[in-house]
Amino acid sequence: MTLSPAPSSRTRVFRKPDRADYNPEAINAIVDAAVICSVAFQIEGSVHAIPTIHWRDGEYLYIHGAKASRMLKALTEGEACITIALADGLVLARSAMHHSMNYRSVVIYGQFELVSNPAEKERSLQALIEGLYPGRWNTLRPINDKELNATSVLRIPLTEASAKIRDAGVKDDVEDLEWPVWAGVIPLNFVVGAPRREEDSEGGTVPVTRYSPRSDSNLGVA
Amino acid sequence: MTLSPAPSSRTRVFRKPDRADYNPEAINAIVDAAVICSVAFQIEGSVHAIPTIHWRDGEYLYIHGAKASRMLKALTEGEACITIALADGLVLARSAMHHSMNYRSVVIYGQFELVSNPAEKERSLQALIEGLYPGRWNTLRPINDKELNATSVLRIPLTEASAKIRDAGVKDDVEDLEWPVWAGVIPLNFVVGAPRREEDSEGGTVPVTRYSPRSDSNLGVA
Repeated sequence: MTLSPAPSSRTRVFRKPDRADYNPEAINAIVDAAVICSVAFQIEGSVHAIPTIHWRDGEYLYIHGAKASRMLKALTEGEACITIALADGLVLARSAMHHSMNYRSVVIYGQFELVSNPAEKERSLQALIEGLYPGRWNTLRPINDKELNATSVLRIPLTEASAKIRDAGVKDDVEDLEWPVWAGVIPLNFVVGAPRREEDSEGGTVPVTRYSPRSDSNLGVA
Repeated sequence: MTLSPAPSSRTRVFRKPDRADYNPEAINAIVDAAVICSVAFQIEGSVHAIPTIHWRDGEYLYIHGAKASRMLKALTEGEACITIALADGLVLARSAMHHSMNYRSVVIYGQFELVSNPAEKERSLQALIEGLYPGRWNTLRPINDKELNATSVLRIPLTEASAKIRDAGVKDDVEDLEWPVWAGVIPLNFVVGAPRREEDSEGGTVPVTRYSPRSDSNLGVA
């Protein structure tokens, strides 16, 4: 069903393998569509997980945080497993058991490395801002050394990763097809609302976000 | 800042503790607002995490899956850490470093237990369907023993949990307030699109989902 094989045994999708996709293009698209991932890791043999903002630059997923963070320290010392999931639709079948969801998800395994070079760190933070708001970085009050020092940036390669996607209609048992209940898909959309300008905000135009231009049907009005 | 103390040291929020909320009402509201969580766990000392649909019934969070699933087996044998995160808004400041997000998140620690009693298992699956689509369970083709047997249901108490919420405007440095760039919040909404009925779907009315009635501004039109 898929063009690329799983990059490792732990990324291979066992349950419903027809939903798996190991192609970087599919993985990158899901990473880019989400803003929050969950990062799972271990501290002294115990499992922890924390939601955090992420972004992608080339073949790496990036996260950042305060320099003193427990999570960032643990992440440079051991393995991590990152999940990203987007709910795309509710699938309503004639039987309870065939109810489902449409979704796009990614699971990434590996070890984070610290982006320690200051110029590289600044470039990666620029990629975060520019990824969300193209053209915004150069309009901002420039970043300073104190700010750069207070922030840690980590990155992990997207090489050991898998995507799992359901994008389909209802799959009912044939003998249930005439059961008299509504069956179908209710889409769930992640949409941008009307921007709320700060009262003391001086000027500039409303920024375009990477979420704005997707499609007209995706533009919510708040 | 909070009325309840953290239920344990590992649920206590260290970074930005003013965003923490340990009250069950706050935690339950976030659990209910999301459909997908990420479940982190260990297999033979390695960390794994998988996104999965969840639901709440009383003081427990529930997940389900195929009986043979590796994850469900590992979860009944060791500790888990569950994260839930909802992105509510993009916060655009005058400096890169004060860009932020509005979000609601929950982290839960504990160990899952198998819901083995068949009647209790059926009741919990009913809670999943009814939680998403009030009134739908009794309109469906009734569940049978084969389906019940093929499914495992697990639950974890919501006692060792914490919420972390940012719901605020821009927090810029005072000396940056006159920097001439747009500053404000761009809301991100999770909205229901127009239902797509299966072509061969016989009848019934379009079901109401728990996402439908929130507010007019939350109703997307697809």
